[in-house]
Amino acid sequence: MADILKGNAVVGQSGGPTAVINQSLVGVIHAVGGFDAIDVLYGARNGVRGIINDQFLPLNDLDRERLERVAATPAAALGSTRDKPDEQYCREILDVFARRGVRYFFYIGGNDSADTALIVNDLARASGYDLRVFHIPKTIDNDLRVTDHCPGYGSAARFVASALIGDDRDNASLAGVKIDVIMGRNAGWLTASGMLARQDETDGPHLIYVPERRVSQDQFVDDVAEVYGRLGRCLVAVSEGVEDTDGMPWGEKLASTVERDSHGNVQLSGSGALGDYLAGLVKTKVSQRLGGKALRVRADTFGYLQRSFAGYASPVDQREARLVGKTAVRFAMRGYADGSVALKRKAGEKYGVTCFRAELTDVARETKSLPAEYINDRGNGINESFRAYASPLAGKLPVIGRLR
Amino acid sequence: MADILKGNAVVGQSGGPTAVINQSLVGVIHAVGGFDAIDVLYGARNGVRGIINDQFLPLNDLDRERLERVAATPAAALGSTRDKPDEQYCREILDVFARRGVRYFFYIGGNDSADTALIVNDLARASGYDLRVFHIPKTIDNDLRVTDHCPGYGSAARFVASALIGDDRDNASLAGVKIDVIMGRNAGWLTASGMLARQDETDGPHLIYVPERRVSQDQFVDDVAEVYGRLGRCLVAVSEGVEDTDGMPWGEKLASTVERDSHGNVQLSGSGALGDYLAGLVKTKVSQRLGGKALRVRADTFGYLQRSFAGYASPVDQREARLVGKTAVRFAMRGYADGSVALKRKAGEKYGVTCFRAELTDVARETKSLPAEYINDRGNGINESFRAYASPLAGKLPVIGRLR
Repeated sequence: MADILKGNAVVGQSGGPTAVINQSLVGVIHAVGGFDAIDVLYGARNGVRGIINDQFLPLNDLDRERLERVAATPAAALGSTRDKPDEQYCREILDVFARRGVRYFFYIGGNDSADTALIVNDLARASGYDLRVFHIPKTIDNDLRVTDHCPGYGSAARFVASALIGDDRDNASLAGVKIDVIMGRNAGWLTASGMLARQDETDGPHLIYVPERRVSQDQFVDDVAEVYGRLGRCLVAVSEGVEDTDGMPWGEKLASTVERDSHGNVQLSGSGALGDYLAGLVKTKVSQRLGGKALRVRADTFGYLQRSFAGYASPVDQREARLVGKTAVRFAMRGYADGSVALKRKAGEKYGVTCFRAELTDVARETKSLPAEYINDRGNGINESFRAYASPLAGKLPVIGRLR
Repeated sequence: MADILKGNAVVGQSGGPTAVINQSLVGVIHAVGGFDAIDVLYGARNGVRGIINDQFLPLNDLDRERLERVAATPAAALGSTRDKPDEQYCREILDVFARRGVRYFFYIGGNDSADTALIVNDLARASGYDLRVFHIPKTIDNDLRVTDHCPGYGSAARFVASALIGDDRDNASLAGVKIDVIMGRNAGWLTASGMLARQDETDGPHLIYVPERRVSQDQFVDDVAEVYGRLGRCLVAVSEGVEDTDGMPWGEKLASTVERDSHGNVQLSGSGALGDYLAGLVKTKVSQRLGGKALRVRADTFGYLQRSFAGYASPVDQREARLVGKTAVRFAMRGYADGSVALKRKAGEKYGVTCFRAELTDVARETKSLPAEYINDRGNGINESFRAYASPLAGKLPVIGRLR
């Protein structure tokens, strides 16, 4: 155990926002208030960028009511960043920390943010600057290692499942083929949550494609034709990152202009290209397969609403996001020098979690894919076993009423 | 006043579904239960198509609990149709009605459905068949004449406003230009509801474009550059039906394949083409205007979620959709021969509505545009006066929390 340092603290938010990332921020603020070791809590504007630009907001004296409103508001109240600091950048961070007497750094974000925390932590040690560094998990992609799941995921899953419940009823009302493109560049966790929409054997989504399983466009056409032939309609949930058999993401093949962010990630979400392309494939090839039948085909790309829609977060996700924020501060106050907060599911029927400390090195950089056990043999659906995993995170979903 | 006929009744749902169209259906079912004049209530599968194919579901003996679940479920529980009956089609409808002893026809839909009701009504009179025909209003487009507003609109407005509240926070977190394409082929009511997202002077959407006001793409570029120059970010809400100065919808100009439904309406919603095109315009021309600054630009097309998202309907909209269903039956039982149910806003501070009977001829075919008084001078925003109109319909929205 390390000493409990006296000094100031910095909290920042990073990467793509979620519906509950402010819960974690408020968790940090509340917890810091309970410990004398931390004097000023600085909120860094736009994550690490705000740190090197010395843009801070003191967070100690905000009233509870305001904080509760902030907690319930989607996206990063402090602002976020896509900056991916290298060693030089992190040295500048440490300079600012030293100048401002900062001894605690709490960084809310995904695996890239954990990596930033790790670099800052290593540099501080190497230079003999006493600093406590904690990563607080956040991502709708649910792709962080070690933790059972990531705050932010449950609310996004709740949005996706509710959207698909409604869209499936819409598709049943006016029969046709509907394709919904869902966020998740490399991991299929969010797309898989679409299976929660199914409350009955014939409910959609009837086909679910995730990036973890390569699928040829021929198989896609076969699959849609089979479902349409059987049910007279078909709802498809497809991850933006689904790969063809040659390993190239469908979306990347199609996008006319490929944009990469500073982490080298290809930008797919904003574009309707994948959905439109797949709709075209259905209109021509599936129609052909069905003897030239004219099909009603539509596509939607759920886009940024999945991470930012206001007023529909998962209550469990809200509580857990608050919890990991608080827990990061408590870990620091218990004398841990660094770490990432991770969640563990309690044993037993009733859902619950405990927090534990993970090593930054185990969370940084690499991500966690959807395990193969959740994907069906043909790679076009999600097994029922996934329901037990995802359902408590998304919370109670609307129950579909039927006339018979 | 006409006689109260003894006989059976048919209820059907038509056109694009909404989040509350089943409330109207359940309103009809409940109300019919209270009158002896109506014997069997048949639900037509997929609107008029189910009638001519003799596909009906008896609705009299469904238990209340099931009906409440159906009422809360988005989209058409009976199925819907895009069929636009001509006179011959309507003759077939009357044949089926005569064979099944149907004396009451309740049709839930938009202006096209009112038109169908009108043709069936006229034909029945001309052929001396005693029939009572009532149109029950439904459309997220809010473009029916006579009525103050349309059931279905409030819930769609609630979805759009909540999406924009969250997306504006997302845009503030990671600054850039975000373009959101909103449903509404010919009328800007739904896009205008985006203004409800603004709770503070600098909140987005900063620009709102509706089909009622032609806008050149040059102006669009100027507008975005002006907002970005002032705030360092910009959130745009644009109707899928916005027209260029030559009267051609932007989306129609751009769509590589233009699809028309049986009403001659161009299909725009499923495609991300308009959003992607406008994003491209910003990346090139707005960037140029700002001295070559590289801009983070994203676009989303809200798509079918606006009419079908489950679990987030407006409570006021739900109540009113139920009310217009009930009222159609009551009008018939009071001895009216035909009509469309319309809503009138009560005078006074507290929001409330009363129902009145409109003539089918006044509701059929033509639609109602967003009045010019709600659109700002430059045609790139919605005036504050619209808030009083739309806010009670969308219901209480999430309140944005801010750190300062």
